[in-house]
Amino acid sequence: MNNHPPETGLSFERVVFFSDAVFAIVITLLVLELKVPHLTDHSESALRGALVGLLPRVAGFVISFLIIGLMWIEHHRIFRYIADYDLGLLWRNLLLLLCVSFVPFPTALFSENFWSRTAFILYTASFGGVAIAKYWIWRHAMAARLVKPDLTPEFEKRIARRSLAVPLACLLAIILSFVSIVLAPISFAFIPIFARLLDPTSKKKSESAMANEEAAA
Amino acid sequence: MNNHPPETGLSFERVVFFSDAVFAIVITLLVLELKVPHLTDHSESALRGALVGLLPRVAGFVISFLIIGLMWIEHHRIFRYIADYDLGLLWRNLLLLLCVSFVPFPTALFSENFWSRTAFILYTASFGGVAIAKYWIWRHAMAARLVKPDLTPEFEKRIARRSLAVPLACLLAIILSFVSIVLAPISFAFIPIFARLLDPTSKKKSESAMANEEAAA
Amino acid sequence: MNNHPPETGLSFERVVFFSDAVFAIVITLLVLELKVPHLTDHSESALRGALVGLLPRVAGFVISFLIIGLMWIEHHRIFRYIADYDLGLLWRNLLLLLCVSFVPFPTALFSENFWSRTAFILYTASFGGVAIAKYWIWRHAMAARLVKPDLTPEFEKRIARRSLAVPLACLLAIILSFVSIVLAPISFAFIPIFARLLDPTSKKKSESAMANEEAAA
Amino acid sequence: MNNHPPETGLSFERVVFFSDAVFAIVITLLVLELKVPHLTDHSESALRGALVGLLPRVAGFVISFLIIGLMWIEHHRIFRYIADYDLGLLWRNLLLLLCVSFVPFPTALFSENFWSRTAFILYTASFGGVAIAKYWIWRHAMAARLVKPDLTPEFEKRIARRSLAVPLACLLAIILSFVSIVLAPISFAFIPIFARLLDPTSKKKSESAMANEEAAA
Repeated sequence: MNNHPPETGLSFERVVFFSDAVFAIVITLLVLELKVPHLTDHSESALRGALVGLLPRVAGFVISFLIIGLMWIEHHRIFRYIADYDLGLLWRNLLLLLCVSFVPFPTALFSENFWSRTAFILYTASFGGVAIAKYWIWRHAMAARLVKPDLTPEFEKRIARRSLAVPLACLLAIILSFVSIVLAPISFAFIPIFARLLDPTSKKKSESAMANEEAAA
Repeated sequence: MNNHPPETGLSFERVVFFSDAVFAIVITLLVLELKVPHLTDHSESALRGALVGLLPRVAGFVISFLIIGLMWIEHHRIFRYIADYDLGLLWRNLLLLLCVSFVPFPTALFSENFWSRTAFILYTASFGGVAIAKYWIWRHAMAARLVKPDLTPEFEKRIARRSLAVPLACLLAIILSFVSIVLAPISFAFIPIFARLLDPTSKKKSESAMANEEAAA
Repeated sequence: MNNHPPETGLSFERVVFFSDAVFAIVITLLVLELKVPHLTDHSESALRGALVGLLPRVAGFVISFLIIGLMWIEHHRIFRYIADYDLGLLWRNLLLLLCVSFVPFPTALFSENFWSRTAFILYTASFGGVAIAKYWIWRHAMAARLVKPDLTPEFEKRIARRSLAVPLACLLAIILSFVSIVLAPISFAFIPIFARLLDPTSKKKSESAMANEEAAA
Repeated sequence: MNNHPPETGLSFERVVFFSDAVFAIVITLLVLELKVPHLTDHSESALRGALVGLLPRVAGFVISFLIIGLMWIEHHRIFRYIADYDLGLLWRNLLLLLCVSFVPFPTALFSENFWSRTAFILYTASFGGVAIAKYWIWRHAMAARLVKPDLTPEFEKRIARRSLAVPLACLLAIILSFVSIVLAPISFAFIPIFARLLDPTSKKKSESAMANEEAAA
């Protein structure tokens, strides 16, 4: 599958680069949702009042920024172990970027319609989509042998299993949102617990080994 | 033509990088067309109703995202076989990027005026423009010997011939749009058939050789 | 902490690249605040009058552009001495980028509400946030031994101390803004003085050694 | 001046990269000025009529795209001969990028106020600013010995002299615009003539040598 004609080595870098650029643009476009209030009264108190009214949008900006930042770190993590690509990887990566570039829309929707279940579900689904695409990328990289040759099969499988933690948490959040929109975000606190359940071998290791591995993975 | 003064090797990378950045920005700007509905009624059903009304725009966003993604992969494909550049390549590449960066406009136009023939023609013409510019880049790279030295003349010509499949499909789609706007998009299904007709040598090869080549090309 | 599994060396570059892309996007988005006046009277004098009215916004654009440029140069400076990264560095860097990407908002606010103390404080706080994040990145890089191995501990500490000059100036500016909004920006003139006070060893050196070091740092 | 502490070699690339990203964003933002007409009458003829009314804006988009593309190629050209940087180069480059990122404003202004002298002067001045900054970068690179060591002093001076052609043409265009706004753009046709006058040594060479040099420079 990987017997490419000779090439510069630029190509795989381009895939990573293109992804980084999309992440960077999306994370920066979020601030455009913070529209400056047009006041007729230019007093300090009127301005402060208008800014306080913007706080839900500021919160949306900060939260979406941090989540996209987290997704970028996650993307970063799996691509460190990938050495090559094929057409299947490109399309799966485009699907991931499609979900990432969609995020500003539910962020804006959520800021306008605070505590709306519809907005919360769209928001959660777009992050869940990123996580599923990431899982799908890794499964494909394993199957098509695009991963670095020195990874152990055990290590590859552990990354795959752990990658299911975020989609599971998103699914739980969407289900819980029908019970209570305030309770639903608690699901995301389960991500480390799900990751531990899906990857039980990590428990046997000592604290310091874990820390090393965390930094590496 | 290519006896440049000594350089860092950074230069060709800059051309590819600049192109990637334009692709990444255009693909990410598409989401800005998804304007959040400003509702007076903040009920879940009103919001859901407004979102259903946005579905044509969401479809436009997803389709344009995937098509620009495809164009990026196509750009990627030919630039893997290019080793150097000259002024002619730079301007042809700028023409390609001009067509790419124009895409958000007909995408927005199409979302506002669903099933409009004028919008469909502009949309198709901008993708056709990208495909023609790509063909023109490759012809120039062949003529000015900017391609990698280890490519066979036969392989170079096959890439050129196959590159005509998309412009032909776009032309057919524009002609068909005068008959029926619903039928016209079917033209794009002809792309693989056109590619096969334009590159008949590919038929003689075995299935598995084709798969390898596909992944490589 | 840094015993990563084998990797391409692409990874650290990605962190720097991602940061550069965010800086580039933010610095370019600033111009979007310069809205073209929609005039009913298309005479040259009406247009010139409208443009004169835009001068505070143009000033805001130029000042924010130069400050973000300065912050990019500062980011550049410390990352030249960093050789590796870990999760802690990634999150501190994301915090810095969060503050950078927030800048267009107070810039727009300031242009709309000239001489408003609230706008000035938000503006100063976002730059102060960048400077604090930068200090925090460097402290972490020192503690986690992510800096280049050939730096002397003395040199590392001097960079840390000097990095406190900008946060101190921002704090002074915010305090002064309660006395006088016109006087407050004078605080920024104290940055080189604070830097000299925080890094007294630099005084002992000859002029030419300083110049070299300035160019290098 | 250039005795930096040890570094990765990433740094100079960052300067070039950051510049490319700004160019790419500005060139892509231009399309945002093409606002989709919101029609009440959804007939094909109404849409075609609205699109014809957009033609001045489309022309502005294409012209600005090509001019920014040209400026990017020019930036590309001089940076191929630069091997190192210092603080002076960074600030001169930021000045160039400030002028580049300002271009969307006069482009939009020009589209709204066709044949306005004020808009034309702002438009020309921003391109002139880029050209002057480019000249200033090159003069500084020569003086601070940041250019590649294998360039001859004669070659360096020729690049400097030729770089004055665009600022001179912009100056002429601004002066002519007071006589006639229709005549003023003709000034830009003088750029190759100015370049030849400023660099008379190029005349002595044979046609084919010139072509090589053109491609290289």
